[in-house]
Amino acid sequence: MLKIRILVAAITLASSVSIAQAWESLPSKAPAPADNPTTAEKVELGRMLYHDPRLSSTGTVSCASCHNTMAGGEDNRAGSMGVHGQIGGRSAPTVWNAAFNTVQFWDGRAESLEAQAAGPVTNPIEMGMKSWDEVVVRLKAIDGYQSAFTQVFGKDSVSKDNATKAIAAYERTLITPNSPYDKYVKGDKSALTTQQIRGMEKVAELGCIDCHSGAAFNGAGTFQKFPLNDNGYFEAKFDFKKDKGLAEVTKKESDKHLWKVPTLRNIALTAPYFHNGSVKTLKKAVEIMAKLQLNKELSDEETTDIVAFLNALTGQFPKQTMPELPATPGQTFNK
Amino acid sequence: MLKIRILVAAITLASSVSIAQAWESLPSKAPAPADNPTTAEKVELGRMLYHDPRLSSTGTVSCASCHNTMAGGEDNRAGSMGVHGQIGGRSAPTVWNAAFNTVQFWDGRAESLEAQAAGPVTNPIEMGMKSWDEVVVRLKAIDGYQSAFTQVFGKDSVSKDNATKAIAAYERTLITPNSPYDKYVKGDKSALTTQQIRGMEKVAELGCIDCHSGAAFNGAGTFQKFPLNDNGYFEAKFDFKKDKGLAEVTKKESDKHLWKVPTLRNIALTAPYFHNGSVKTLKKAVEIMAKLQLNKELSDEETTDIVAFLNALTGQFPKQTMPELPATPGQTFNK
Repeated sequence: MLKIRILVAAITLASSVSIAQAWESLPSKAPAPADNPTTAEKVELGRMLYHDPRLSSTGTVSCASCHNTMAGGEDNRAGSMGVHGQIGGRSAPTVWNAAFNTVQFWDGRAESLEAQAAGPVTNPIEMGMKSWDEVVVRLKAIDGYQSAFTQVFGKDSVSKDNATKAIAAYERTLITPNSPYDKYVKGDKSALTTQQIRGMEKVAELGCIDCHSGAAFNGAGTFQKFPLNDNGYFEAKFDFKKDKGLAEVTKKESDKHLWKVPTLRNIALTAPYFHNGSVKTLKKAVEIMAKLQLNKELSDEETTDIVAFLNALTGQFPKQTMPELPATPGQTFNK
Repeated sequence: MLKIRILVAAITLASSVSIAQAWESLPSKAPAPADNPTTAEKVELGRMLYHDPRLSSTGTVSCASCHNTMAGGEDNRAGSMGVHGQIGGRSAPTVWNAAFNTVQFWDGRAESLEAQAAGPVTNPIEMGMKSWDEVVVRLKAIDGYQSAFTQVFGKDSVSKDNATKAIAAYERTLITPNSPYDKYVKGDKSALTTQQIRGMEKVAELGCIDCHSGAAFNGAGTFQKFPLNDNGYFEAKFDFKKDKGLAEVTKKESDKHLWKVPTLRNIALTAPYFHNGSVKTLKKAVEIMAKLQLNKELSDEETTDIVAFLNALTGQFPKQTMPELPATPGQTFNK
């Protein structure tokens, strides 16, 4: 069951002081569910699966193709490109710190990283596998995966459940600590510029962080309506309402245009913006959010200050070793 | 100028003894041209460029997409998939040990790794950039590349020449030493099984290594006609002659069906086989080579022995760090 909490933007918030006290730095570890504890071997298996294009029908698209771990955790495209050059209708969310979302996908339809990982693999315009049974057959034919699954999950353990558990365990390591913001919050007052501090105060004062709350600035799994206020000009230009958000899944009128509150962590790296990737710059995205969600017109200085602060949410990416993908010597994976 | 040497397969070779003495292990370093010495900083820049999908029009295809450094250095597909799902007519050659080829591409039309690296980027069905000028504009807009180029090549040095030099320098590090074959040649007589040793003797006796000669089993830049002998059955089935090889470039009758001798290093990892990727297993590829190039029918045991030996040419892949691709904060790369 999908549990949904909806926050109404606290537009009328009188003081930023109490919120300012709640600034949190990013935890260095993400919580793992009881039935999927993180282990080093599991993370390594997950790292392989995550980067393996053989999880797609054509052998050309891996999780990393659209959620690029060498960059901002996504593909900097409006719609991602799946198998056979097909283009999706939503902009890939970043995988960095996704472990701190309590729901996944733009519409929050998955309750865990494990549930999310299962989706794109069999989506016909993403990775295009006919079924997870087909994926499992393919993985079982690769000796290196057989032995890696055995090591992590026991004998004869290649399955959808275990594959998505390993991918999720890997994703829980994709955390970007030590952003200038984090350093500032931890006491290094020189970590932010005065402009960034002005922006920080402004996002509190405006109420941005009433929804984008918590250490990951993602509202910890809350949903929000977007756009909240009607605006014919922006709608004509960016077509935000074409996609009904959660209602596309639930078909409920009350879920229309409801979206998971996305993280602001590393937001500077994930242009273009919004669920349909229709907005090319962070500056424009900030203006639009102020207008559509808070009914505020920002001055150019205010916008620039907020953008400066958002740039301070870019963290440090952990050094990663490239996985060595196990082979099927002498034959193709899709014989 | 493309210099071509053609070796006629030494079908009539009487003794394998002299050849057996020439077994060479893989050098740990590849030679670099005088105008592109390998440096650590250049390799790191090349590693970034090689893995950066922003070198393609769609932002979805990097060099690594088709020449996968997490696997056998290619994509295990018959034809690679470029931008917008377009499929090429030739099977991607492996990047591993490409530094030991003196000519590049299946048809050997590039004389260096540097020259090769320039090609796919502007090929409309591969990476689809309109021109290298367009690539340079894109790279120049990325501060992290500006500073990396400056560090390696000096101020204002973002250019096609320097980008391809950096990519080539990185590729020169993609060497896979310590295959069972190498260990055997260096004196570890237990490194090969008796079946693999039989296969090794067989490839010498048959004359396979007259063309696939040298440490990289690639004839050091020689060309060979394929197919050498006509065979209606294989031709009907695999359509080898449709592609005229080097003659597609030079338009010369004498270059018809001439191909660079490809390396046998890691051949077990690079199915499907031949220039058009039409043959799915290494076993079948060995049978076909024997018939079409040497006019020999191999017994099942001989074929299996040779395949066992070829599996002994799979080397050790160097541990690699994932590059961190420089960003364009707050905007897309293709604004």
